[in-house]
Amino acid sequence: MNIDALSSEGATQLSSNLAFDSRILRYEHESKTLGQLKAKFSLIVPPGDTVVGTLVWLSGLTCTDENFIIKAGAARLAKTYNMVIACPDTSPRGANAPDEDKDWDFGTGAGFYVDATEKGYENYQMSSYVTQELIPLLARVVGTDKMAISGHSMGGMGALQLALNSPQLFYSVSAFAPICHPSVVPWGQKCFSKYLGDNNDDHQWSRYDPVELLGRLNKPSKFASILVHQGKNDQFLTSQLRIEDLIDVCQRIGQPLSAKIEDGYDHSYFFVQTFLEEHVTFHHKALTEGDVRNVSLQW
Amino acid sequence: MNIDALSSEGATQLSSNLAFDSRILRYEHESKTLGQLKAKFSLIVPPGDTVVGTLVWLSGLTCTDENFIIKAGAARLAKTYNMVIACPDTSPRGANAPDEDKDWDFGTGAGFYVDATEKGYENYQMSSYVTQELIPLLARVVGTDKMAISGHSMGGMGALQLALNSPQLFYSVSAFAPICHPSVVPWGQKCFSKYLGDNNDDHQWSRYDPVELLGRLNKPSKFASILVHQGKNDQFLTSQLRIEDLIDVCQRIGQPLSAKIEDGYDHSYFFVQTFLEEHVTFHHKALTEGDVRNVSLQW
Repeated sequence: MNIDALSSEGATQLSSNLAFDSRILRYEHESKTLGQLKAKFSLIVPPGDTVVGTLVWLSGLTCTDENFIIKAGAARLAKTYNMVIACPDTSPRGANAPDEDKDWDFGTGAGFYVDATEKGYENYQMSSYVTQELIPLLARVVGTDKMAISGHSMGGMGALQLALNSPQLFYSVSAFAPICHPSVVPWGQKCFSKYLGDNNDDHQWSRYDPVELLGRLNKPSKFASILVHQGKNDQFLTSQLRIEDLIDVCQRIGQPLSAKIEDGYDHSYFFVQTFLEEHVTFHHKALTEGDVRNVSLQW
Repeated sequence: MNIDALSSEGATQLSSNLAFDSRILRYEHESKTLGQLKAKFSLIVPPGDTVVGTLVWLSGLTCTDENFIIKAGAARLAKTYNMVIACPDTSPRGANAPDEDKDWDFGTGAGFYVDATEKGYENYQMSSYVTQELIPLLARVVGTDKMAISGHSMGGMGALQLALNSPQLFYSVSAFAPICHPSVVPWGQKCFSKYLGDNNDDHQWSRYDPVELLGRLNKPSKFASILVHQGKNDQFLTSQLRIEDLIDVCQRIGQPLSAKIEDGYDHSYFFVQTFLEEHVTFHHKALTEGDVRNVSLQW
């Protein structure tokens, strides 16, 4: 592990703090994938020379790379489970794309982890940014390409679709309150139509839709199990998240899914911090054992 | 425990979330002590009918009642150690006092937990608010008057001075990076002179200054030990905090003090979250055993 090599990779360190013996680092670099825009990312780096791997965390609508770092209580877990945790931003910043700063659920802070194809959104390439730029960079400086991925809400959707689209990159995938079926809910329809154009026959939307991706796969993915937590008191549960669609498609194709519906919990980071250790344990097991086929199946 | 009785005590619930089976509650009430201004406070309430006591947490400059709740990862500890954690605000809000919104280190967000005596600052009665209004209210709804107190920076100072001034209220006191000797540092001098007037012979300043209070006590306090953590990389260590003055006076009067200077840690909540469990354990011991005389003495 040589995190300080990020500087020779063109990343500027913005801040450094210590928590639970782990370094909390924030960087900014010029992103080729995002059209040379400056992109920030945050890292939690446990003490020691080697780690079992990196957990990539994708945040939700309105977030930056910092929300998870501040609110999730993750430094304790990074140290306990000896994993780097990496948080990219949720969209490009300063792209001057149409309407990008008009609504909180579109544009800035709402990149949806897709590669946009529509005119004006050329900088919105968050899928490629995470998988082809940030992850290779992390693999170089962390000293291992063992990656797991998770996220919250829009970021839970991102984690699921990036893992299904690039299964070779990840040992495991989990999500908190993901937008499971973006093609059929308002948040997804709004962003997909503007970033990807109409939901037409070339399946532009389904490429980024976890439920559609699993449906088209039509057999279990390479992931021996997928772990998802969902708060039962989540105000967005039925209107935007559609955990039931994810459960249905996994049942149909035989994809093992551990879907845990938690009484009393809402959509906030209080929910995330509560169940985070269970996810970190899940990813730690995958990263160290390389096979999670024995994780029990819960519907 | 009957937290919901807060509504019949005139407090309005602003929000309710769940974290680690504990309720994260935010309230607003009209405060008699603060001249009928509205005051907000936040609570972490573990599951179950009874708790071992309440830890009152005082935050630092610029904070509200929410910073600790969001950043400290305390819900897990509230559940593990079965304690209510209560966070008052750091000043009155909307008092229209002179210059109260001019600087970040004076006025709003900087009440310094004193009872102001100067003209224009009649609403700045945070000492009385915490000890005579909020704590009795909490004792009624939590169902026990067993209290411990801690805080960070200005709040660490507040915890120390409130405990020394009202030892009958608290079983134990601790602090993170406290302003130990406010009378001799810029933050303290600025606020004390405006809230309390000149540092004259009637000892108005020393009443709220932990080092001066201990010096005037001239013998050990009733607290069998005081626990203080201080980051060695804290940018305010020598200019504003003066842990060495606290160590000196405790040595002189024979007050047991566990002063832990931590390499690499700064003034942020990353520092607080790292050592919080040690403080909660310390207070839990005091609240359950009623005597911490055997806690080891470290200089």
